[in-house]
Amino acid sequence: MNGAESLVRTLLAGDVDVCFTNPGTSEMHFVAALDQVPGMRCILGLFEGVVTGAADGYYRMARKPASTLLHLGPGLGNGLANLHNAKKAGSGVVNIVGEHATYHVALDAPLTSDIEGIARPVSNWVKTSPSAMEVAGDGAAAIAAALEPPGRVATLILPADTAWNAANGIAETPPPVPPPAVASEAVDKAAEALRASDKALIVLGGEALWEEGLDLAGRIAARAGCDLIAEWSNARLERGAGRVSVARIPYPVDQALKVLEGYDTMVLIGSREPIAFFAYPDKPSRLVPEGCAVVELAGPADDIKGALEALLDALGVRDAAPAAVAEADRPAIPSGPAGHAGIAAVLGALLPENAIVVDESITTGRSFAPVTAGAPPHVWMNNLGGSIGYGLPVAIGAAVACPDRKVIALEGDGSAMYTVQGLWTMARENLDVTVLVFANRSYQILRGELTAVGVQNPGPRAVDMLSLSRPDLSWVEMAKGMGVEACKVDECEALARAFEAGLASDGPYLIEVVL
Amino acid sequence: MNGAESLVRTLLAGDVDVCFTNPGTSEMHFVAALDQVPGMRCILGLFEGVVTGAADGYYRMARKPASTLLHLGPGLGNGLANLHNAKKAGSGVVNIVGEHATYHVALDAPLTSDIEGIARPVSNWVKTSPSAMEVAGDGAAAIAAALEPPGRVATLILPADTAWNAANGIAETPPPVPPPAVASEAVDKAAEALRASDKALIVLGGEALWEEGLDLAGRIAARAGCDLIAEWSNARLERGAGRVSVARIPYPVDQALKVLEGYDTMVLIGSREPIAFFAYPDKPSRLVPEGCAVVELAGPADDIKGALEALLDALGVRDAAPAAVAEADRPAIPSGPAGHAGIAAVLGALLPENAIVVDESITTGRSFAPVTAGAPPHVWMNNLGGSIGYGLPVAIGAAVACPDRKVIALEGDGSAMYTVQGLWTMARENLDVTVLVFANRSYQILRGELTAVGVQNPGPRAVDMLSLSRPDLSWVEMAKGMGVEACKVDECEALARAFEAGLASDGPYLIEVVL
Repeated sequence: MNGAESLVRTLLAGDVDVCFTNPGTSEMHFVAALDQVPGMRCILGLFEGVVTGAADGYYRMARKPASTLLHLGPGLGNGLANLHNAKKAGSGVVNIVGEHATYHVALDAPLTSDIEGIARPVSNWVKTSPSAMEVAGDGAAAIAAALEPPGRVATLILPADTAWNAANGIAETPPPVPPPAVASEAVDKAAEALRASDKALIVLGGEALWEEGLDLAGRIAARAGCDLIAEWSNARLERGAGRVSVARIPYPVDQALKVLEGYDTMVLIGSREPIAFFAYPDKPSRLVPEGCAVVELAGPADDIKGALEALLDALGVRDAAPAAVAEADRPAIPSGPAGHAGIAAVLGALLPENAIVVDESITTGRSFAPVTAGAPPHVWMNNLGGSIGYGLPVAIGAAVACPDRKVIALEGDGSAMYTVQGLWTMARENLDVTVLVFANRSYQILRGELTAVGVQNPGPRAVDMLSLSRPDLSWVEMAKGMGVEACKVDECEALARAFEAGLASDGPYLIEVVL
Repeated sequence: MNGAESLVRTLLAGDVDVCFTNPGTSEMHFVAALDQVPGMRCILGLFEGVVTGAADGYYRMARKPASTLLHLGPGLGNGLANLHNAKKAGSGVVNIVGEHATYHVALDAPLTSDIEGIARPVSNWVKTSPSAMEVAGDGAAAIAAALEPPGRVATLILPADTAWNAANGIAETPPPVPPPAVASEAVDKAAEALRASDKALIVLGGEALWEEGLDLAGRIAARAGCDLIAEWSNARLERGAGRVSVARIPYPVDQALKVLEGYDTMVLIGSREPIAFFAYPDKPSRLVPEGCAVVELAGPADDIKGALEALLDALGVRDAAPAAVAEADRPAIPSGPAGHAGIAAVLGALLPENAIVVDESITTGRSFAPVTAGAPPHVWMNNLGGSIGYGLPVAIGAAVACPDRKVIALEGDGSAMYTVQGLWTMARENLDVTVLVFANRSYQILRGELTAVGVQNPGPRAVDMLSLSRPDLSWVEMAKGMGVEACKVDECEALARAFEAGLASDGPYLIEVVL
């Protein structure tokens, strides 16, 4: 058994049985091992951002890491942005990054680079395996690192000779360490703060936004008479009819300040203190109102469900009925041009039960939440790292993790372009993903930001830098070029028919929604 | 004047007047300054790999750096692979990377990352500007760093408040430092080595491969009776009828060893000692034959032309006629299916004078050199960093630098996919680029490498990881989707007609060549 085979077998023994890949020469022994050892599902991406984003989406639904296979430093670099997003989302990923043979590195060949240096900013754990004998152990350590709560990015660098030399065998992955329980003092403090305030807000994040967590939070809110809210970006928000409904803190700073205004107590459960996405010259970076006390009960890596249960017990209301449960409610399909409200209504009217919505709709999607709140139960995913191009890849990973559920990717045209190669992987794997691309032909969010910095009448240079027109992109042609069925619509009823066609399909289907 | 404006004016004063951009919110003040200050040509890429690769291609032809505008750490990450390639090519680039306002970084917002850490592995110079007062000076220092011979990657990180706060004015860029002259002892040693050997080889790189350098090298070879060869990958090889013709050291290790066999003396001029691109279990990493003396006359960053002149003088043959001058010679256009030899012949038959060929043809292109050697004078560019996806972006940069010359991008289908978004920028700027995509529907080079590691009959998992079929990509549809005229051919005469149509066009034109 060579190092590559010992690593593949170690991954499989550690329950890592999906590999999103974009290999190169230095990874050929690993590819040969994947070919010879049964059990690993290998999924090719034609660009590494697809590979790493898919691993993020996979973890969010499967709750176990996938592996990636990347080609030296530049291949890792191509996957960097979506590893950044995965790290911020708390998604566990095991990256296998090929490297030159140990003795070849000093020659500074064309592809030689500081791989550890590239990996570190987007990884919680980095190691270059020193020998074939140690590769299996390093692989097991990488899996263990990826499983640390809430999920971490682990990057194992695999010099070619550690793959081809003789190895020792398989290493066993230690059982995952559970998330740490919150201290009872913190629970008491949070309970006391909620009791003392009649204008308190609980900010929920992480597992607090899964169905069970929301149910517990809803009971707490009912008893304490406080409000619930979710962070702006969430890895996995379980929502829809019958579930406790929480709004998200708005992205625009002024709107966020308004929503948070007047609270004197804020309790954080699985979340972090609200801050602005970006700084602006004349706006605050911290969004907590002046004089509002902030009590952290549980951070994103803590035992969030345990914290909710303990808080509920401390308040003495285990069997209270939860507050803010969403009633089943669907809007009618509207007619007329497909504007933001119309698109929202079509989504609300047709969203299928158990759908997984991957939301990278940027400006177009800001009004989607209220009108979809009463749709059948579904999952809603956001980008936690802010680097656009996460949507198509995360949809791939979610679809691989949950083959029986419909995945719906909501994409801005600007953001979808960054990892447009993902469409091909959807076609190759016949993934059950319906993609809606909202074609406003611009980086619309930046048009607003440019106005915000004082440019009222931008000239042609600025307009050209923020616009995707001249020429317009044809999403239908690009999708067909990558083997994905596609159509174009510009009004609501046609959108509804197209969406129904996508939902009826078993494979990928793209709808270009011209705004 | 705010910091952003002082930086834009400093760039312009330092003769940096092209900006390849993909901006975000944190760069809006810089965008506003670009809008207000005339003189900067701003070119949008819909993915950052397009932006950074374009800067590489621009420097290779313009011999001055372009700037890039990138959005925080992940935006830089998306541009990382082509910065790696640019750094290895010795291309000068001035990266401007946005960052959160200085006081916002500590809040760990979604897009916060270790930007310096991401930049360092692909930059020769990195600095985060500490204040608006210092931004202009830092910008001038970045230009100076980018101009260091032969050309360097400089990354200036621009916190948003250093862009929006009040600045001091414009900073002056110091004059570029010329490349260091080689010592006369080194010249004497090289001359002596060439005189003493009758089996000597000069390995040329960098400026030695420009017309003047080649002419000097040809005279040296004629007098010394030695052979000339170029490195496998070259930033800018000037070749064609009337120029001294040099072959490149082959990529496959066995072929390279054969070509280098028998030489007892190797003189390096602008090049490095030949090494294998990758290590293999049973092959050498260093390609110099045993017992062959290696004499380094000039490295890639030295005064290469000066070294050639000094060597010529030392050999006492200033006015010798150069050896190995290519005669004008074009093959006939063949008929039949478009195989490697047929494609090569079509290129040789039709390559226009002054063309700039950006070669990312990988396996398909290995036979292109001999049959194009007698075509009218042209430039041939390779990838020096080995990270695929360099071709379309470098073609963009070359076309921007040389609007009067025809750019021809030779692309493997696998490699073109990595930065496929470049097609849209070609359409947006109506760049005079003819793109040939060689569609063998696979990472063909890896099929060979897999065989080389001992997998004779790969199973479906391995085949699927190296194949781009199921579904086939349609390059015609993808190109049209991004506004580029395109056609598909599979035999030589049709390829010739399509190539002529591309050459006759003033804008981008893509030919999918099905192999």
